[in-house]
Order: sequence, then structure tokens, then C-alpha cells
Amino acid sequence: MKTVHETTPKYFRIMQQIVAEIRCGGLVPGVQIPSENQLIERYKVSNTTARKVHQELEQAGWVTRIKGKGTYVRGSRVDRSVDRILGFTKNMIEAGRVPSTRLISAKLRRRNQTLSINSRRYILSGPVCEIQRLRLADGIAVMKETRYVSERLCPGIYKKDLEGSLYDIYEHDYGLQLMQVDQRLSSIIVNGEEIGFPGVEGRISAFCVEGVTSCAKELILDMEKSIYRGDMYHFSVRATR
Amino acid sequence: MKTVHETTPKYFRIMQQIVAEIRCGGLVPGVQIPSENQLIERYKVSNTTARKVHQELEQAGWVTRIKGKGTYVRGSRVDRSVDRILGFTKNMIEAGRVPSTRLISAKLRRRNQTLSINSRRYILSGPVCEIQRLRLADGIAVMKETRYVSERLCPGIYKKDLEGSLYDIYEHDYGLQLMQVDQRLSSIIVNGEEIGFPGVEGRISAFCVEGVTSCAKELILDMEKSIYRGDMYHFSVRATR
Repeated sequence: MKTVHETTPKYFRIMQQIVAEIRCGGLVPGVQIPSENQLIERYKVSNTTARKVHQELEQAGWVTRIKGKGTYVRGSRVDRSVDRILGFTKNMIEAGRVPSTRLISAKLRRRNQTLSINSRRYILSGPVCEIQRLRLADGIAVMKETRYVSERLCPGIYKKDLEGSLYDIYEHDYGLQLMQVDQRLSSIIVNGEEIGFPGVEGRISAFCVEGVTSCAKELILDMEKSIYRGDMYHFSVRATR
Repeated sequence: MKTVHETTPKYFRIMQQIVAEIRCGGLVPGVQIPSENQLIERYKVSNTTARKVHQELEQAGWVTRIKGKGTYVRGSRVDRSVDRILGFTKNMIEAGRVPSTRLISAKLRRRNQTLSINSRRYILSGPVCEIQRLRLADGIAVMKETRYVSERLCPGIYKKDLEGSLYDIYEHDYGLQLMQVDQRLSSIIVNGEEIGFPGVEGRISAFCVEGVTSCAKELILDMEKSIYRGDMYHFSVRATR
């Protein structure tokens, strides 16, 4: 009779060891797991087995394979550095996720928009283009974004393809350089389905992010009011003297 | 018969005008309302009436009077700049609140502490002093703090008076200069009373803040894992190019 050890496929045992290392924190999100060649050498297995370890770990959601780069431990939440100017698209690529965007609406509004952050009041003069979008990571809705974009600085932006990076449109189509983003984060409780996160039933924690994006000469380019799913995001920041 | 206008006390009408300005956003949190002298001049009232306007606005929670400085519009939530090294005590004073601290426990622990922020793993070597405190603004519990402080860098810190600013103790008692704080914010749902916020019944939104404080030469001085009440705090941050 074979022992349990002998009947368990080799790839599965190696996989369990790597999962255990991730679970105990020995392998943290963002670091590479051993490459297929390293597995072959270390465990004396075939390249078929080594490849299967990587495939199975990816399917189980533990790692992300990035073509030509390697296989990285995946965090259960996406980390967003809030002290860098960093669009959703770029943030997701850095986190090893596949970003996509679903446009909900784009409307022209005459009125000014205002926002107060850290005792300072910002005014964005109308008309503005109000853009609502659902933003997805690996096909899962993680953020609902509302932006008010200056029609003066970006005339006709509502006619552009708005299912990609707005920051790219600002920079490439309008030649605007982003200089500063002032943000205010609140921790709130929302109803997932009411906000428009498909399949998210009941009340979940979320970040409400209000922001003001400025380009050169302190010109306000857009204002944001977005809801980030609390179960999908961390925000990180470094304070220095 | 007197009109309504005539029967309403003067101080009350002035107060209502200022409240209306705060409500519509004309006066934002952190700005000064007209001084008593300005009220006397503008509305042709006695200094008794002017003083009563300020007193009543403060009692109703609309403003905070800071001795020798002025009377400031109060935000319903405290704003915390997360891109500055800023202790609780200083943050509260800047926000026009009165900070206080209740020590829950201070214990010596032998084990190392670890924390992962933005794909980087930090290790604080034991022994550490684990300090639990409840932090209050104007007598209301707003934050429950747990800090693990290096016993190597701060020997005997558990014997100090821990109901004030830890940052002051680091700097004045141990001559350590704080250089960097790396923080990770999560949005979570907690049970107010279970966490230990007196009188906060049921589930509320909160920020979980995990942080690593370093002094010169990248030495880790402490690690933090605190719960900030979501209904009492905003976090603000500026991102620049």
C-alpha cells in the first residue's frame, strides 16, 4: 500500500509548500516565487511539473504571472500609494492585475464644482464634463469613479474614448502635465449593489476618495469623488520629516 | 404687536447667519469666523451680544475658541494629514480640539514584530514594549492605538508617563529624531463597543492604520496598529509629481 505522501502528486506537494510560505508571511505580496527552473533544480522535478505548480498557483489566485518578468505573490487587496500621482490603470499594472473600465455616463454640466480638503476650498469653474465609470481589476469591479473635468482645459473630452486612462488623455490629447493631486479619504459603509458593484451583496466597508487634480500654475483640471471597495484596497503613504 | 424679527434676540439672529454660512460652505472648517470686535462693528451690537454669539456657537459645536488666537469653524471630523509626521496630540491641537489619552496597558514582549507595507516587509526586533491607549478629542474616544516600541532604542519606556505624546518621549527622553513613517490604511467595519469606544453601539466604519516609525539610519523605532473611528476622521494627503 502506498503512503499518503506517495499518492499526492508532486506538483501539489510543492504547491502546498509555497502556499504555506505565503500564508505565514515568508513570501509577501509583490515578491517573486521560485521560477520554474529553480523548482526543477530544487525539487528534482520535470519542467511539466514545475509549470503545473505555477499554473495551479495562478488559478487558485495566489500568484500572478507577468509575461517575460516572473511569477509574483499576489496581495488579496491592491495597494494604492496615495502620495504618488498614479492613475488607476498604472496602479493596477504595477499590482500585477489586468485593468479595465466600463463607462457609465458622460454628461456636460454648467455649474461650478466645489470641494474642501484640509481647510482649503477648491472651486472648479463650469462647464465641466461629469464622467462616471466602473473600474475593474481582473474583471472584478473594485472602484466606482465620478470625475468632473474642466471643459475649458479639455474641450470636447466627452467625445473621446473614455474606457481607458483619463490621465493619458489629459497628457497626450490636451498636452496637460499633472502637477498635484490633493485627496481626502473617508472610511464609510456602503451597500455594494446600490453603489453598482455587481454581485457584492449587503453592506461593505469602503473608502470615499475626494480629490482635486491640478496642472501647472495651480489650474484645477478635475475633481473626483470615488468609492473604492474596502475589501479590495489598501492605501499606503510615507510621511517624512 | 412685535414682528418675529423684533422678538428674536439679536445674538440669535447673528448666530443663525453664521450657521447658515457654515452650512452652505461659505465658511469652511478651520477658518476664523468674524471676531467679537468685527461683530460689534458690523452689526452695531454691544460686546455682551458679540461675546454671546461666540459662546453660543461654541456650545452648539459649530466653532472652537482658541485662547489668544481666535474662533474657528470646526469640522465634524478631524482631518489628519498622512503625508506629514504628526503625532495625535499635535494633530488635535491643530484641529482646535483638546487631546487626552487613557493608558490601557503597557507590557514587555520578547518576540519580534513584523509588518508588510507596499510589498516591503519590516521587522522590529524584540524585546518590545506593547502600549495600548485610548485617545480622546474633547473627551470623546476617537482612536484606539496599539504601539510596539523598541526596548533597545527606548529602554525602560514602560516606566514613563504614557498618557501624553510618545513622539515627545522619543525625542526628549531618548534623543531620537523621527525620520519616516510608512503607513498602510484599510477601511474596515468594527463593533464600536467591542473595540472599546464607550457609548458607540453597533457597527461603524473605521480606518485600520498600520505603521512603521523609523529614526535615523533606517532604525525601526516602533510599529503601530490602530483603529481610527470613521465617523470622527478624514485622512488627507497631497501627491506631487
